[in-house]
Amino acid sequence: MRSFFITLVSILIIISQSVYAFEYLQPLPDKPIFPDNNLQTEEKITLGKQLYFDPRLSLKGDVSCNTCHNLAAGGDDDGAVFNMADRKIKRSAPSLWNVAYLSTYFWDARAESLEVQALEHLFDPKIMDMGSSAFLESRLKSIPGYVIAFSKAFPNEKITTENIAMALSAFERTLIAHDSRYDQYIKGNKSALNEKEKRGLNLFKNKGCLGCHFGVNFAGPAPGPALKMGDAFYELMPTIRGSNYESKYNFLDDQGVYHHTLDEEHRLFWRVPPLRNIADTAPYFHNGAVKNLHEAVRVMDRVQFNYGVNEQEVDDIVSFLKTLTGIYPPMTLPRLPETEGATLIN
Amino acid sequence: MRSFFITLVSILIIISQSVYAFEYLQPLPDKPIFPDNNLQTEEKITLGKQLYFDPRLSLKGDVSCNTCHNLAAGGDDDGAVFNMADRKIKRSAPSLWNVAYLSTYFWDARAESLEVQALEHLFDPKIMDMGSSAFLESRLKSIPGYVIAFSKAFPNEKITTENIAMALSAFERTLIAHDSRYDQYIKGNKSALNEKEKRGLNLFKNKGCLGCHFGVNFAGPAPGPALKMGDAFYELMPTIRGSNYESKYNFLDDQGVYHHTLDEEHRLFWRVPPLRNIADTAPYFHNGAVKNLHEAVRVMDRVQFNYGVNEQEVDDIVSFLKTLTGIYPPMTLPRLPETEGATLIN
Repeated sequence: MRSFFITLVSILIIISQSVYAFEYLQPLPDKPIFPDNNLQTEEKITLGKQLYFDPRLSLKGDVSCNTCHNLAAGGDDDGAVFNMADRKIKRSAPSLWNVAYLSTYFWDARAESLEVQALEHLFDPKIMDMGSSAFLESRLKSIPGYVIAFSKAFPNEKITTENIAMALSAFERTLIAHDSRYDQYIKGNKSALNEKEKRGLNLFKNKGCLGCHFGVNFAGPAPGPALKMGDAFYELMPTIRGSNYESKYNFLDDQGVYHHTLDEEHRLFWRVPPLRNIADTAPYFHNGAVKNLHEAVRVMDRVQFNYGVNEQEVDDIVSFLKTLTGIYPPMTLPRLPETEGATLIN
Repeated sequence: MRSFFITLVSILIIISQSVYAFEYLQPLPDKPIFPDNNLQTEEKITLGKQLYFDPRLSLKGDVSCNTCHNLAAGGDDDGAVFNMADRKIKRSAPSLWNVAYLSTYFWDARAESLEVQALEHLFDPKIMDMGSSAFLESRLKSIPGYVIAFSKAFPNEKITTENIAMALSAFERTLIAHDSRYDQYIKGNKSALNEKEKRGLNLFKNKGCLGCHFGVNFAGPAPGPALKMGDAFYELMPTIRGSNYESKYNFLDDQGVYHHTLDEEHRLFWRVPPLRNIADTAPYFHNGAVKNLHEAVRVMDRVQFNYGVNEQEVDDIVSFLKTLTGIYPPMTLPRLPETEGATLIN
């Protein structure tokens, strides 16, 4: 991972250096920026979709990417943490909708690309648990349909672990929910939000939320001329210590970025999470400890600002946040290539 | 469950009583017979599809019907038994493709309809674990999209456990893979099978397989004028005792129908399983102990007939069995109705 992290202070420098006009409130661009080393092709996307839905990418054949990042729903699961008995994962599955507009991945920003994120999950013993590249590649090479699909998507390289991650990422970059009512509003349709939602937007600005949750994904700067992929935008949470929420929601148990950098200054720092489609991704926070959006807003006010927003204001902000839900594109279920008359799962 | 079971002996009586011409080899009819108390409607099917893919039908929100009966694949999973650590299930998930043509459900034929099958799974502590009808109904009533969808599908009754099972079953009765090469052949296209596959079909007849695996689904008689829903067609397996396969594949551990009837005469009796799409549903047998179709054919020959089929014959029979794979219809992924800003999963 790149060592260059960005916080709220340094973002001002980046903004001033940007050759592009900077806007705190931005609509979702039609297309994200695709990485030069993994440009989109139909063949890659088709293959990536099969892989995404294929439980054979897990050792026991019991979970696919879609198990926790459910594309029939908000791109995540509904549980606090992945709650199968043999897989105690301490962080909540983030949504995969609109991930192409992010510069880093995981709650602690430890992956600089979707490709790196996919590779980690494929071999994480608590997630896909595929053991080794050799094992993963050997399994997919046993599936005739994949041999064909990989040869189309990657003509010279065929089935490699890197190509698996590339195909998955190419598919994931198509997961975009456009045209939320917020987008319609920000593009000029002033009647797309009602009065309550507009009050919520103003509170979202004036109460400081927008200080971190800005830009196309409300997650800080998106990759582009001013920001390279892998540059993380992160913040301290909780900033204001001592509230009851700390123990109620176990906010001090997981120290965030610190766990992978081991830098004391990173304790309790987290990537600023995106807010698009937030109404469809309960529960909230890295540990999924907060079950509803009203409470999430109360918590953020208390631990980041301590303004003491009242319940009317909380409700207005939630109304605004619900306008960030885009239109999910229709999706066909892929057909998974078969191994006729045999199973690859032990 | 109806107490009327049919075995190979009594089937002859049924056949002779049938007003319809009886054929051992039959193509898949265009449509199955729908039960009078749950006729198909678009509204029920649409709702049933959402329910089928919705993990919120399980207590912990971690599995949907599609988790084990994967419609992106052969309608089953690839594992021997559902292998998540906290759910040790002793029988393999059967395919849901073409289930509308069956007269009973589960390996031991204990459910007389898909509706009964669904109800059992919803409350099985090892599967969906929903605890009670009140809990299940209360959860679905909390999802605004389901309130609307149920009021369309069941205008006077709304969200009841019985209606959940009815909608699921209506959707499942649409899961039909038509037009296998076998169907084309049996309808008159004699070039639909090659010479090897035709040899396999002849062996399938002449070696006795067709004695039990006959009819539209190769599972015995289908419901119709001669057979009521709930009438089970079952057989003893293993019939010829003493082979090494008994211990190798643990065929004596699970005594089949006996476990629910407690009738000594039902020890080791099993519903004759359907063979359509069999090449896509490895592993095989009730406990999923046999990983490939060649071995499954060897086992069946040894434990049911002991003819001693040779490897060429096994390979021919497998070639024929692979022609039973139909064309899976394209399917869109449903959108699951959301609970905006909240999760229902604890």
